[in-house]
Amino acid sequence: MRYLFGVDVGGTTVKLGFFDADGNLLDKWEIPTRKEDNGGHILEDVAATIKEKLTRDSIALQDVVGVGLGVPGPVDDAGMVYKAVNLGWGEFNVVKMLSDLLGLPVRAGNDANVAALGEMWKGGGQGYKDLVAVTLGTGVGGGIILNGKILTGSTGAGGEIGHIHVQDGEEEVCGCGNQGCLEMYASATGIARLANRRLEKDDKPSMLRDKPISAKSVFDAVKAGDEVAIEIAKQFGDYLGTALANVAAVVNPEVFVIGGGVCKAGEILFDYICPVFTRNAFHRCRGAKFSLATLGNDAGIYGAAAMMLD
Amino acid sequence: MRYLFGVDVGGTTVKLGFFDADGNLLDKWEIPTRKEDNGGHILEDVAATIKEKLTRDSIALQDVVGVGLGVPGPVDDAGMVYKAVNLGWGEFNVVKMLSDLLGLPVRAGNDANVAALGEMWKGGGQGYKDLVAVTLGTGVGGGIILNGKILTGSTGAGGEIGHIHVQDGEEEVCGCGNQGCLEMYASATGIARLANRRLEKDDKPSMLRDKPISAKSVFDAVKAGDEVAIEIAKQFGDYLGTALANVAAVVNPEVFVIGGGVCKAGEILFDYICPVFTRNAFHRCRGAKFSLATLGNDAGIYGAAAMMLD
Repeated sequence: MRYLFGVDVGGTTVKLGFFDADGNLLDKWEIPTRKEDNGGHILEDVAATIKEKLTRDSIALQDVVGVGLGVPGPVDDAGMVYKAVNLGWGEFNVVKMLSDLLGLPVRAGNDANVAALGEMWKGGGQGYKDLVAVTLGTGVGGGIILNGKILTGSTGAGGEIGHIHVQDGEEEVCGCGNQGCLEMYASATGIARLANRRLEKDDKPSMLRDKPISAKSVFDAVKAGDEVAIEIAKQFGDYLGTALANVAAVVNPEVFVIGGGVCKAGEILFDYICPVFTRNAFHRCRGAKFSLATLGNDAGIYGAAAMMLD
Repeated sequence: MRYLFGVDVGGTTVKLGFFDADGNLLDKWEIPTRKEDNGGHILEDVAATIKEKLTRDSIALQDVVGVGLGVPGPVDDAGMVYKAVNLGWGEFNVVKMLSDLLGLPVRAGNDANVAALGEMWKGGGQGYKDLVAVTLGTGVGGGIILNGKILTGSTGAGGEIGHIHVQDGEEEVCGCGNQGCLEMYASATGIARLANRRLEKDDKPSMLRDKPISAKSVFDAVKAGDEVAIEIAKQFGDYLGTALANVAAVVNPEVFVIGGGVCKAGEILFDYICPVFTRNAFHRCRGAKFSLATLGNDAGIYGAAAMMLD
């Protein structure tokens, strides 16, 4: 039997998964992300916990195919990280460092791209090889897989779908510094922004007026037939459906896998995204499927392990 | 010495190039595109003219690496053409057919994608491996190269940049059947559309009022300082610069290579495209270079030959 490790480095915890080569998750655990000394101990801690696991289970190094690593920041194909603000990391080669610490093959990728690969391997994108994953969380993350491989891009910024420009004349500023990015309208915070703006516009009655606004409260109200909430959902769908139609014209995927906290609303999201997608997508790209992500927070460890498979 | 053939099948003529493996164009010629019988003789004619060339120059079959083929329509990675309206072609495998006729390895791609590869190999994109080519002609064509390979897409529609949706509420219809595609504003005909709409809006004096409108007359007027023409060029730049910023957020290229008839205007195009690109591009994608295509109508034969190189 041969084994894989998938490691998802986050700002608070590092998630680790131990897999067989068929993608069965045999064990998973977390360690805290030690951010002191500019995150200089993180990879040491990862190496130590992997070595412990191997010793504890009496697994020989040569039975391990390798360790895949997802990092919250841009990573190029050679494993160079340029900056991972959440970890305190500057510029260095994570592949070389972890591989030297472990004596095992290592590959690394941006966490959103790696999660996309995970959804393709064992999640909402199984059976496809050209896939776009969109994570609607605090921000909008994206990951693109073409012919089964992560689209990294020339500076590690491939698949940065959240920063597609969708609105001229926006006055607020996106986390990235631009104005009018998709993330400002289609993330959980973006949906709340749309809702607050709509509610301020007039006094039309809405159940949204009674409680704190969130993406969840908006889609709960949509399900209850609230007209104002439906208007907000349509705006969300216009932005996201058009942006994904444009992504489709560029990379022509087989499937969009939609994940993140906003997806707890369920398939009702597609009622607002898909008609707009269909209207604006180039005819040969229109057949792309939409599915919900299924791996949740485990997408990163699955995808990281999957990086070691070819 | 080993040789390559590059074949660019167009609606009127088939262009052929004979190259050495370093990419030196040793000979080029054209044959008419015989469209009768649903284009059923086109590949026979291609095979015949290649065989004649080999006989005439006493070149052995084993000294030919292969034949690359650019086709005006979607082609998948296996060589299946789904429809090439201009040729009368329906669904069949062009790679298999031409390879059977010649006894040589054959690869095929969509003509716009193949031309992008040509510009990377020997044109405006030399030295890069992540490239987006944009052809501003009667329509807007696009071709994307990532890690030196054509991005084909799941249905052969990768890089269909001309059909990015850039304008809601458009009343005219694009050739593709949608409304508000980039092609409607950034092609030669699109620029003329913008110009006619602007001129109809009021009576502001402009040298554009004296003559037939074309992309050329608009950019000639821009160079002469005509204010109305400059407004039109700004609109063109807003549409194209934003669309390319969005392409950059998806595939994160090193360079955009801009070609097609509109490019005869020269580097002045960049004065209108680049500031908008810079404003709307995600910060890590903002460093993409812009260059003009240099191979003109030969991009297709270069790119077709280059397909045989890896």
